[in-house]
Amino acid sequence: MTQPNHPQPTAARQAGLAAALDPAARPTVRLKPAGKKKRPHFGSPWIYANEVQMTAETKALEPGTPVRLETAEGAPLGCFLFNRHPLICARLIARDSRAVLDTDFFERRVRAAVTLRDRLIGGPYYRLAHAEGDGLPGTVIDRYGDTLVLQVNTAGLDRLCPQLLDALDRVVAPATVVLRNDSPARELEGLPTQVEVVKGALDGPVELVENGARFRADPGTGQKTGWFYDQRANRAFVAGLAEGARVLDCYAFSGGFTVQAALAGARQVTAVDRSNDALELARASAELNGVADVCRFEKREVFQDLEARARAGERYDLVVVDPPAFVKSKKDYWQGIKGYRKMTRLAAPLVAPGGILAVCSCSHHVEPDTFADQVRRGLGQAGRDGRILRFAGADVDHPVDPWLPETGYLKCQVLALD
Amino acid sequence: MTQPNHPQPTAARQAGLAAALDPAARPTVRLKPAGKKKRPHFGSPWIYANEVQMTAETKALEPGTPVRLETAEGAPLGCFLFNRHPLICARLIARDSRAVLDTDFFERRVRAAVTLRDRLIGGPYYRLAHAEGDGLPGTVIDRYGDTLVLQVNTAGLDRLCPQLLDALDRVVAPATVVLRNDSPARELEGLPTQVEVVKGALDGPVELVENGARFRADPGTGQKTGWFYDQRANRAFVAGLAEGARVLDCYAFSGGFTVQAALAGARQVTAVDRSNDALELARASAELNGVADVCRFEKREVFQDLEARARAGERYDLVVVDPPAFVKSKKDYWQGIKGYRKMTRLAAPLVAPGGILAVCSCSHHVEPDTFADQVRRGLGQAGRDGRILRFAGADVDHPVDPWLPETGYLKCQVLALD
Repeated sequence: MTQPNHPQPTAARQAGLAAALDPAARPTVRLKPAGKKKRPHFGSPWIYANEVQMTAETKALEPGTPVRLETAEGAPLGCFLFNRHPLICARLIARDSRAVLDTDFFERRVRAAVTLRDRLIGGPYYRLAHAEGDGLPGTVIDRYGDTLVLQVNTAGLDRLCPQLLDALDRVVAPATVVLRNDSPARELEGLPTQVEVVKGALDGPVELVENGARFRADPGTGQKTGWFYDQRANRAFVAGLAEGARVLDCYAFSGGFTVQAALAGARQVTAVDRSNDALELARASAELNGVADVCRFEKREVFQDLEARARAGERYDLVVVDPPAFVKSKKDYWQGIKGYRKMTRLAAPLVAPGGILAVCSCSHHVEPDTFADQVRRGLGQAGRDGRILRFAGADVDHPVDPWLPETGYLKCQVLALD
Repeated sequence: MTQPNHPQPTAARQAGLAAALDPAARPTVRLKPAGKKKRPHFGSPWIYANEVQMTAETKALEPGTPVRLETAEGAPLGCFLFNRHPLICARLIARDSRAVLDTDFFERRVRAAVTLRDRLIGGPYYRLAHAEGDGLPGTVIDRYGDTLVLQVNTAGLDRLCPQLLDALDRVVAPATVVLRNDSPARELEGLPTQVEVVKGALDGPVELVENGARFRADPGTGQKTGWFYDQRANRAFVAGLAEGARVLDCYAFSGGFTVQAALAGARQVTAVDRSNDALELARASAELNGVADVCRFEKREVFQDLEARARAGERYDLVVVDPPAFVKSKKDYWQGIKGYRKMTRLAAPLVAPGGILAVCSCSHHVEPDTFADQVRRGLGQAGRDGRILRFAGADVDHPVDPWLPETGYLKCQVLALD
């Protein structure tokens, strides 16, 4: 955990805070004229740096300053959080340019998000806020009962974090709040990276419930916020196919698919991951649910492991492959998408005739069609036919802004093979 | 119901039947050389007319004849059903060129399809076979308990229908079998259109169960096969948001969304459709489930009705718009896709703040991205923000061949509006 290292350019910073609470003190930023046709009055919540008139005043704005954004002709587009450094230089926070960004404001956002989850998901274990999908630019909040884990990936929300935390106190009253502000995205925004417990105390793993199964997750040091709620519905679907099955769970992480398949009556589940820490959590969760006897945990590199199992003639009724992002940035694109083809080619031979193959991608840069195309080619290379039973994204607590379909990053395709 | 009018060019027809049962008697059709790169050995189950070497022998083949398809270089691609008339002139029936297309062959296909449904869906009410997704080119079979309704839309399967019906008898032993062979697609294949009860008797509507609700459907004269099982999972999701809600169900058809929302505790459901027959079935189903008291059925044109309700200031907590295909052919494309924008623009104002809007499209020609774009624009025109909670296709009994993503026609987007 690195130490905080907040920049403190005082005058500009104070002006930014004033702009949050006092709309009259809010600077104006204008789009270039060319943006008129492309950028309708009611449109995308993201503005790119090349779309903005970068005047001296605009350039001098403290990163994250709330601004009044206008078209070149002066039509108001709303209140945006401005940061000249990243490619996305302005993010919509309110359609009303004069919105006051105080604790009341964030309380309304948080309350709407919590109400939606409480309606859709049983129990306080969910992604409480999914960034733009919940009107909180670049900020995710995962809830583990009375522990909240935030990732604040924009300068704008970082600046307004005190108001957001107060709002969370009012609506959820968490015992523990962790800022998992160690993502690379923060560096692009010029923000320090750090992990901080800002309320209560975090003593090791927390517990969560998903689809009736209990899990241990580690919000302090695990991947991302410690758990991937996005796969909840996909895990439930896959578990529904697991009764009596021999299951292979590749990139098992903390055992989400493994334990739920075992609870659904799988005959045997083999969980493969390269991380011992993740597998230890998975093992603990299997024990917590009384299914450790049908689960094996094997520390391996997945691609090599798939090849070894194929050579050994192993067959499974259900194979899940849920890797970390193969395409982490645009420059990885062509190499990365081939990874999805290869993993399908290597996994398909392990699926018994009439069995199930579930393949996933969480790469933001890979569109569903592209992913499906690579899966299809991998199946072809393996000489296997099949049918797609389900092709889904993230669960309902990961809502997507209609203007930002590219933020719907998760792809999970479940196929029945011949 | 028109009368059957089978063509009877005897010698060619007999050769075609021999080609089904005797692989040695199977004619060979070759692709043009250009197809090599585009068309891998293990690839698409559809071959287009311009990809094939149309020799005199090939042109003389009786529509629907099973052929051995080869690349220009003589590499075998499998057994395809050939018909020179439609754009898709050959459809894969088996990767093995020497497959014998007898009752045993179809029994394996049908058994695999039924096994999958019985595993995924509780009760014998489902799409038993979804064309290429279940290895039965252009042929859908819907199951209402012991009544089966088939739509056979290719000459190849039409010719092999006796074997398919025998296989269904072996696996399902239906009491009643209806051939709803009245779709326009059959005309493109040079097939007669007709509705025929080939086994048992059909006396008016049948009953089915979906997500625990009972329904009446009319396989003899209703739209398509009388019921749209494809929306099953979407209806369950929407019903999960209906408790205490005032619901407006546009293009309500036989009441799938209406009755399930009412059963889930909706305060009031208004079902709008232009068909009296459909609304009468919906009303009967509402009574069957004891929820008629919270349902209203109004015969109206939906677009005009939405405008009238907006003028009257009506507001609903949940609005569903599930229209028939606006894009029925490629020439309707640009006009048709605007229909999705317009329906969203007209429906959004009727959604109360914090309410739900579910919009659907069953147009094959409209891709999910395009549909989503029109929905987003419609919301923009209505000045409404929101988030996508779910963007799904058809339910699991409508599997999609990985090589034919374009056959995944259904789009259902559920949004929570601000």
